[in-house]
Amino acid sequence: MNSRNYHTPEAADIEYLKSVTSPERVISGSEISEDYHHDELGGVRRAPDVLVKVQSTEEVSAILRYAQKHHIAVTPRGQGTGLVGASVALYGGIMLDLSLMNHFLEFDEKNMTLTLEPGVLLMDIAKYVEPHGLFYPPDPGEKTASIGGNVNTNAGGMRAVKYGVTRDYVRGMTVVLADGRILELGGKVVKNSSGYDLKDLLIGSEGTLGVITKLILKLIPLPKFKISLLVPFPDVATAIAAVPEVIRTSSVPTAAEFMEREVILASEKFLNRKFPDNSADAYLLLTFDGMCQQEIDIVYEAVAHRCIEELGALDVFIADTEERNESIWSARGAFLEAIKASTTEMDECDVVIPRKFFAEFVQFSHSLQDKFGIRIRSFGHAGDGNLHIYVLRDELDETAWQKMLSAVFGELYGKAQELGGKVSGEHGIGFAKKGYLNEALSTDEMALMAGIKQLFDPAGILNPGKVITSCQS
Amino acid sequence: MNSRNYHTPEAADIEYLKSVTSPERVISGSEISEDYHHDELGGVRRAPDVLVKVQSTEEVSAILRYAQKHHIAVTPRGQGTGLVGASVALYGGIMLDLSLMNHFLEFDEKNMTLTLEPGVLLMDIAKYVEPHGLFYPPDPGEKTASIGGNVNTNAGGMRAVKYGVTRDYVRGMTVVLADGRILELGGKVVKNSSGYDLKDLLIGSEGTLGVITKLILKLIPLPKFKISLLVPFPDVATAIAAVPEVIRTSSVPTAAEFMEREVILASEKFLNRKFPDNSADAYLLLTFDGMCQQEIDIVYEAVAHRCIEELGALDVFIADTEERNESIWSARGAFLEAIKASTTEMDECDVVIPRKFFAEFVQFSHSLQDKFGIRIRSFGHAGDGNLHIYVLRDELDETAWQKMLSAVFGELYGKAQELGGKVSGEHGIGFAKKGYLNEALSTDEMALMAGIKQLFDPAGILNPGKVITSCQS
Repeated sequence: MNSRNYHTPEAADIEYLKSVTSPERVISGSEISEDYHHDELGGVRRAPDVLVKVQSTEEVSAILRYAQKHHIAVTPRGQGTGLVGASVALYGGIMLDLSLMNHFLEFDEKNMTLTLEPGVLLMDIAKYVEPHGLFYPPDPGEKTASIGGNVNTNAGGMRAVKYGVTRDYVRGMTVVLADGRILELGGKVVKNSSGYDLKDLLIGSEGTLGVITKLILKLIPLPKFKISLLVPFPDVATAIAAVPEVIRTSSVPTAAEFMEREVILASEKFLNRKFPDNSADAYLLLTFDGMCQQEIDIVYEAVAHRCIEELGALDVFIADTEERNESIWSARGAFLEAIKASTTEMDECDVVIPRKFFAEFVQFSHSLQDKFGIRIRSFGHAGDGNLHIYVLRDELDETAWQKMLSAVFGELYGKAQELGGKVSGEHGIGFAKKGYLNEALSTDEMALMAGIKQLFDPAGILNPGKVITSCQS
Repeated sequence: MNSRNYHTPEAADIEYLKSVTSPERVISGSEISEDYHHDELGGVRRAPDVLVKVQSTEEVSAILRYAQKHHIAVTPRGQGTGLVGASVALYGGIMLDLSLMNHFLEFDEKNMTLTLEPGVLLMDIAKYVEPHGLFYPPDPGEKTASIGGNVNTNAGGMRAVKYGVTRDYVRGMTVVLADGRILELGGKVVKNSSGYDLKDLLIGSEGTLGVITKLILKLIPLPKFKISLLVPFPDVATAIAAVPEVIRTSSVPTAAEFMEREVILASEKFLNRKFPDNSADAYLLLTFDGMCQQEIDIVYEAVAHRCIEELGALDVFIADTEERNESIWSARGAFLEAIKASTTEMDECDVVIPRKFFAEFVQFSHSLQDKFGIRIRSFGHAGDGNLHIYVLRDELDETAWQKMLSAVFGELYGKAQELGGKVSGEHGIGFAKKGYLNEALSTDEMALMAGIKQLFDPAGILNPGKVITSCQS
């Protein structure tokens, strides 16, 4: 894979890295844990030559300046919980581990902002701000992900239907460019029309345009009340058709998750815990939140009534206690792990399509099970039109598995494109989805993206082989 | 000003423009109305050589392809309601008037999107979607602006504190690049992590990176109830200090506007209508909206109580009827016109600063009146930290006026920068604020912006002289 002719770090390079950081934070060769060779899905593997556990913007800057000068590939990494190989060192070289940069820097209640390092875990943000009555809404399933990784993939999560995605909560950032220059983008301001929006270009760029070393997040007041409804439906089509109707009935739900019986059964087995109900083919899990109990009551009663009377629901289970809520949401949170545990290997497709075509797309993905004789599991954010589809390897040998994946994914991405969808709703492109992005975008759009990569990283040292093929490759 | 050596359209060029549009939509030379020589503020003036009233993406594409080939400057224009000269043809050439592209193309209730042409007026969007119970939240003061202009400046408006800015409501667009190629960016999808975010690069680019010819807007359910509170305070500092407290008391207000007695008096005179109160030095105008009357009642009562008991308000006027609301908001909507009518000429500064420094900044701007012996008026979005400051020319001669503007603006932008603010919160950079942007941004950030301009418009024909100095100039 080393066709780009990057320099492989040698003893002198490693000495330099130690001199600008500290010796115990620079690990090389076989001393590097195998955990750093892959991400959560594990299908893409390669060891970095040297791992540096950085602690500051200045260290990142010094390392990048050196790496560009010596043409060494650099792969930034947070918690490695990604699913598309974005944090794997495809060309070896230096891996920048940002997990020690996990400090809260400033909590500014008057401006309702939180300034922090990229290695802070998503779950720690909630713990930090919620006792102060403030709220960081993005809620991806993987709570042990780092906020830097979330920003680099523009992560979505369960609450995107009401609150939007990670992009909507990044007010400012510090970013180190490929040649070591340090930029401050945005700030604590609420709005900004001052030149081109470089901040949003960095968000979702998966470490290919710069290394983010500080973030300023927007917070909002914490909703005081919430309630979840688990709504069983006789079939997938009826369940999903209800989603736009629910959204139009009242306030936008905080979450509108879609799940099927097979996935619930897998989750019950994985957690060894019963789900409140597993008798129906398909379920919607709806959450409503707000500042006023009465508002929530009015909304959920109206929605429950419509689901039963008009939208074909079999029942409505109300989770109005913390325990009930927890039992449902912990099952939802375990879906990915549960599906993974039920097979030998899997790969995923994270397309997003216009909400009104969601049912059609889910049924299309079902039809591929029979067509190809393979198990496919899916769940997702019905309110957003974002489906996570897992193709399970089970007993296939490597050759058959690769052939199968290519055939099934070809159909899924093709159908998504036909319906006006996009390759990735929230997991990103990384290495694994690059081919599908290439097929989905027009040549002109791809050329502009390649031009942007070339502008930010002319030597092509930053996370090479991801998202886009730069002009150097 | 023609230092860039653009080709001035001649008879053959005009014939070509007529051949790809239609003769009656191509106007040249002295036939072009003087309205097209300037924007709303009027300080920047230049006639285009030829004005083309385009009607389709294909026409725009044909014109740009031709203009790039013949090196003719092209300036896109909506309603010309901007304040920074962005829609003035600084180098003559072709002005693309997009006002005839004012059609609604598709209203998709299930996906909650509205597809429309860029020439649709902001006020017509509300009229179109609200009867269906849907809502397009951005609410800039200038309701006769076109949506294309709003997107090109990333306009903010009164409701940004709760609902965000124009950027947050653009799901997709069609854009014509400088060489005539047509790109589709985004779509109807709710989220997207598929490569670099070109859509957000176009938003706020003021016509310098491409010409937007179609937009897909996100809609949300229309809030059913709203109420406004007009809260008088003894002085500016007390009024503004209350804003972060109000936001933390409860739900985020839909609007948190700041106004002073002088501006209210000017507005009363301009509209020949009484404002509900004009006895206090400073006012906050707060609006709350939501789906549930009881929620709004709880919120506004809590806020009113805190304003009087703890935050130093003199009184609280409640506007809970449509008429009362209208009388307050029509006065607010007339501020710009009223200030303009009270003097011979004015120029404005639209800085945005972190909310908690807003009071300090307003008082600083006041202090400049005495320091320079000039009248300064301001009002703004206290919830966003976005202040509109107008420096009034009154009786100054041209030389003294330019000198004064330069001195006062130098102080204002310098102070904003010191407080972590930005040059423009919502009006954009255009021509008038380019120097201040240049001073505010780092050389590295400016170089990246120039690189992006160069990538999108290598010949430098698109809205030249605005936002950024391209590599060609």
